Amino acid sequence: MLGLGLSLGFFFGFTMKAPEWKFPESSTTPIDKLLKPQYADSSDLFTGLNKIAKLLGQTNVSYDKEDLIAYASNSYSTHSPSSDQRPKMICYPRSTEEVSEVLKVCHQYSIPVVPYSGGTSIEGNFISTRPGLLLSLANMDNIINFNKQDLDVTVQPAVGWQDLNAYLEPEGFMIGPDPGPGGQIGGMIGTSCSGTNAARYGTMKENCISVTVVLADGTIVKTKNRPRKSSAGYNLTAIFVGSEGTLGIVTEATLKVHVKPKVERVSVVSFPRIIDATNMVTQLIQEDIVVNAVELLDDNMISVINQTGQLKKSWPVAPTLFIKLGGSEENVLQRLTQKIEGISLENNATQFQSAGNNQDSEDLWMARKIGFWSTIEYAKQNISPDIKVWVTDVAVPISKLSKIMDETAKEVKESGVFGTVLGHVGDGNFHCILTYKPEEYEKVKQISANAVRRAIDNEGTCTGEHGVGVGKRQYLIEELGENSVNLMRKLKMALDPKRILNPDKIIKIDPEDPNKF
Amino acid sequence: MLGLGLSLGFFFGFTMKAPEWKFPESSTTPIDKLLKPQYADSSDLFTGLNKIAKLLGQTNVSYDKEDLIAYASNSYSTHSPSSDQRPKMICYPRSTEEVSEVLKVCHQYSIPVVPYSGGTSIEGNFISTRPGLLLSLANMDNIINFNKQDLDVTVQPAVGWQDLNAYLEPEGFMIGPDPGPGGQIGGMIGTSCSGTNAARYGTMKENCISVTVVLADGTIVKTKNRPRKSSAGYNLTAIFVGSEGTLGIVTEATLKVHVKPKVERVSVVSFPRIIDATNMVTQLIQEDIVVNAVELLDDNMISVINQTGQLKKSWPVAPTLFIKLGGSEENVLQRLTQKIEGISLENNATQFQSAGNNQDSEDLWMARKIGFWSTIEYAKQNISPDIKVWVTDVAVPISKLSKIMDETAKEVKESGVFGTVLGHVGDGNFHCILTYKPEEYEKVKQISANAVRRAIDNEGTCTGEHGVGVGKRQYLIEELGENSVNLMRKLKMALDPKRILNPDKIIKIDPEDPNKF
Repeated sequence: MLGLGLSLGFFFGFTMKAPEWKFPESSTTPIDKLLKPQYADSSDLFTGLNKIAKLLGQTNVSYDKEDLIAYASNSYSTHSPSSDQRPKMICYPRSTEEVSEVLKVCHQYSIPVVPYSGGTSIEGNFISTRPGLLLSLANMDNIINFNKQDLDVTVQPAVGWQDLNAYLEPEGFMIGPDPGPGGQIGGMIGTSCSGTNAARYGTMKENCISVTVVLADGTIVKTKNRPRKSSAGYNLTAIFVGSEGTLGIVTEATLKVHVKPKVERVSVVSFPRIIDATNMVTQLIQEDIVVNAVELLDDNMISVINQTGQLKKSWPVAPTLFIKLGGSEENVLQRLTQKIEGISLENNATQFQSAGNNQDSEDLWMARKIGFWSTIEYAKQNISPDIKVWVTDVAVPISKLSKIMDETAKEVKESGVFGTVLGHVGDGNFHCILTYKPEEYEKVKQISANAVRRAIDNEGTCTGEHGVGVGKRQYLIEELGENSVNLMRKLKMALDPKRILNPDKIIKIDPEDPNKF
Repeated sequence: MLGLGLSLGFFFGFTMKAPEWKFPESSTTPIDKLLKPQYADSSDLFTGLNKIAKLLGQTNVSYDKEDLIAYASNSYSTHSPSSDQRPKMICYPRSTEEVSEVLKVCHQYSIPVVPYSGGTSIEGNFISTRPGLLLSLANMDNIINFNKQDLDVTVQPAVGWQDLNAYLEPEGFMIGPDPGPGGQIGGMIGTSCSGTNAARYGTMKENCISVTVVLADGTIVKTKNRPRKSSAGYNLTAIFVGSEGTLGIVTEATLKVHVKPKVERVSVVSFPRIIDATNMVTQLIQEDIVVNAVELLDDNMISVINQTGQLKKSWPVAPTLFIKLGGSEENVLQRLTQKIEGISLENNATQFQSAGNNQDSEDLWMARKIGFWSTIEYAKQNISPDIKVWVTDVAVPISKLSKIMDETAKEVKESGVFGTVLGHVGDGNFHCILTYKPEEYEKVKQISANAVRRAIDNEGTCTGEHGVGVGKRQYLIEELGENSVNLMRKLKMALDPKRILNPDKIIKIDPEDPNKF
């Protein structure tokens, strides 16, 4: 294919070089209207990277093999890079202006750039699919300004969400999203992450007030000022949240800050069936009872966390809801907890336990917190020490949730691989944490594919909070249709015509890309 | 300019015809990199409109002069069309597919298209700046599907928000945004409107789950399925909300539905100064007291509504907060009302009155509701029967609000024109309703300009909820900078390369556009 494309291009001259220009009047860009992108050859790559090293200084770049490997992936990613999918160089700019200078060089020499902050995403979102630069934001980790009165905070992209909360907490504040530990603001914006708090505070989409972005050609853009509300033109902020670094590199973000609830009350409710739990959540929503978080753990997950020995008590092995209320007055939450207990009984709950104070609440919530790592630890100890993990991430309208959770949990059990299920049920979002031995790879891939297709068949999405990365591009087409994905590609080509920014993520940008997904 | 541009283009051949193609490698599109758009000449216009008439049937188009004038503007717009700024034809498609067919013809013949639903926007958002088609969505006014369990509703664009609420209300539900009466979903998405409820439920941005859009070339795109949460690629929904019909025509939308509060309690609080009122609102926010609405009326506004004779009682002529609480339990709201009363006293309130039941609450809220029309009526009766109205609409971070409200209210009083001030203070958003005689046009324009510049100088926006339309394009540049606006133009050119969709709104698309704004 490669040879044919190039030789045809050569034969027909410039009209073949950029056939997208022949279709400027369409509103979308189908993949077959593009030619293969022309990235820097090894000589240009060498020249360009050298220029960047000179620009930033040798202490702010690295060619160290260990670094290049360390930045290529993490140990818990669903999709791992092949051994040649590594950056050629890592650079560490210190300011928006330096990021701009770096991108100007990359743009000039057509060098692929993968932005990197926390490196905790798991869909292969930061794999160096093409020889190029990894742009680490590690040197940009300052909290720039906290506007207490306006409840917003402006930060650089390498600020970790936990560090940010530690900074805000003494004054009684917090940010909304709470993804996996280690996540940093840049990547959190990239995947439009969320976590357990989304039930009340929304996802990164609802929590970004404004971002400063460096575009592919080095242009610096601020998407908005600081007002909470605005109708001032296109919603540029929203274009970058969830774009996984494919449209621009976020170098600064203003986020909403929330008042941290003075009082928190956690209740833990066991049910005979998943549907009883989701019915209860539906009823909470219909009665406008605002919870701060509501999480569903399946029986396998409960079993695993019971076995960790880390908890003060063990729970009945059954589908279980963890419900967190937050507020400023203890007696209001107490009354609400009673109401919730009543609703749980209406929905066949077999056990209801609630915390009497903040410390008890934290103890109960701990069970929810350790779910992910407990599953991996359990499988390592009981199945195989070199177990691997595949995490699914689908979301559907809540009326469809119990059906697809049930079907997926059943399939996991029948498959013989060990997996647990964890749902952010208030958002209709759930994960299977599938552990597998190398020879079971195809099996878990199929389970994951089935979970995704079930979600899509039920008006849902292939990804609720982890992003598309490299593994879900085909699902995106199945979910939204060719036209929608072609519109995304039109946007990509408009903002990044040389296709240098985090290539091959979310959408195919290369007609000769051999991967089906 | 026109002659020079054209003759140079002719001289240099195709390279001059579309110079934007000469700069495909940049991430933004400055206005001076574009040539004047080439719209249909009168012969092509005639042919194209005839094709559309044939397509839809003569009963679904109109050339009637009265219709053309009626659809050109409304009586309360800040910016009115000149007498030649009228559509050449109105068409009334009945389905997404028909809208697509119409746009294919417009695209082929380069015919400008202005989409139209409620026609209540006031920034000249639907002026036919170029001879072309007005696409009325009046025949697409069905509520398609209400998913009670998932709290979402799918509607066509000509459904009015009040009608939708009337449909949802018997079952105990409502939608979030509550803009001016007569607004319809299509236009509400176009301007990313909001209203008093945004304090709790957010604006149209936060309330659109998904839209179906017809792009400039007729391509039909659905932006998302129905899950509440998604990280599935670029946020296409967000690209269209607030784009004022310049990027696509929304033909279907899935909106969030909210549980209508069973109990509502309104309190009315008078203050000596505006800053006392905004201080109180800041304190409410800092103490995480969730109000359903909090509106600030200045002394002029109170005076005007007192004089309508429509209310059961009159209020002290002073800056006044109208605070609405909503919930499911009366005693919770009662306790909260007491708390709010305490906070109001801490902030120098001179009078606090709260409603004892839902009916009393509605009576109190009525005063807020009649503010806009009362101002116009007052000015008609007391100043001049052919008074005109100019409504400003700025938003800032709440810490800056009292300062710019004060300064603006002072300027209005000193100017001698009669105006009232109305603030959605929870969102940092406020309006001046300026009434003026024709000879005072330049004066109110200046007041408005000053209000906008004050907002921009205070990290705010030139429009909180009305949109940019034709009058605020220059402010958008002052607010966000050239790069951001050039990025918007890049998006516009990508999705609508012939610049046929609602031309001249939000951003300049014609380098020879003579209007500074």
